[in-house]
Amino acid sequence: MSHLSIIGTGNMGQAIASVAGKGGHTVQMLGENDNDTAVTGDIVVLAVPYPALKDVIGQRRESLAGKIVVDITNPLNFETFDSMVVPADTSAAAEIATALPQSRVLKAFNTTFAGTLAAGSVGTLPTTVLIAGDDADAKSALISVVTSGGLEAVDAGSLKRARELEALGFLQLTLAAGEKVSWTGGFGLVA
Amino acid sequence: MSHLSIIGTGNMGQAIASVAGKGGHTVQMLGENDNDTAVTGDIVVLAVPYPALKDVIGQRRESLAGKIVVDITNPLNFETFDSMVVPADTSAAAEIATALPQSRVLKAFNTTFAGTLAAGSVGTLPTTVLIAGDDADAKSALISVVTSGGLEAVDAGSLKRARELEALGFLQLTLAAGEKVSWTGGFGLVA
Repeated sequence: MSHLSIIGTGNMGQAIASVAGKGGHTVQMLGENDNDTAVTGDIVVLAVPYPALKDVIGQRRESLAGKIVVDITNPLNFETFDSMVVPADTSAAAEIATALPQSRVLKAFNTTFAGTLAAGSVGTLPTTVLIAGDDADAKSALISVVTSGGLEAVDAGSLKRARELEALGFLQLTLAAGEKVSWTGGFGLVA
Repeated sequence: MSHLSIIGTGNMGQAIASVAGKGGHTVQMLGENDNDTAVTGDIVVLAVPYPALKDVIGQRRESLAGKIVVDITNPLNFETFDSMVVPADTSAAAEIATALPQSRVLKAFNTTFAGTLAAGSVGTLPTTVLIAGDDADAKSALISVVTSGGLEAVDAGSLKRARELEALGFLQLTLAAGEKVSWTGGFGLVA
């Protein structure tokens, strides 16, 4: 069993906590008034919007050393829904990995809406969490959390693939914002 | 009804011809020995690999003026399966639009494997063709071809979104090459 700390109590943080709970894992939830509370999880999920990452990392850099850190953000311009706010040749996850060289950074959960994490399905398909990262053990640990919680998980490759996962998350958000898909739909993966 | 010219007789060209045929549209297929045959379609699908686009465009630039030109390529490095061969802030489709300023360029079919186009389904989901482009009438014409052929079609936004469609196509190809999904699977879209 794993012990997770989830920083951020919004709908994504709650949905990820629900998945972990279903799998029998323990979860520490940390909200915006918990800045002085130490993270206790071996897996720390940064379930905050991209613009809030800088402060969270600044406050918690030392305590995140040695831990698995999961970035779930979609770093897009939410005013225009027409561009990303990270340079085109990188990703939010790569930025975090640079800022936290002593942590094992994974990209995950950014291609699944909160509703599909909570429901466990996208239409008739099981919800699949795509996970990218450079540390195989870290990926295995997160894959275990996800699959024990009743979802599918796929190793999407190295952390370099976070760029494509963020593009997919961006595209899916534009489709939902444009009412082409619902917030309980989106992309499902067929093996 | 539309009349399509499909340049390229590989599995993607054949699958797209099959979809158009099911919808009652007429198709001119042009292979590599047909360089001297004029394109007759109002919709011209460039169903050739990315490296072949330059020659096709060079040979046919004038005859493509005024037409709807559909780019289906996934411009990735097929030796490494680890990067794209177009700059990160652009797309193959944007390059084609620059090279063919008198054509109405669409991105489509790059996120659907040939097998899912031919079958009409991805697992239990209908196959959805994502289409990006800046000309609404051109998108409507291609959407009609796709839906009359029994598939779903979604307007994925402006041609700028081709970057995200190409990232999705790239990701999907890496998943298939890594045996995470089959060539008859991949991403399906749930409305």
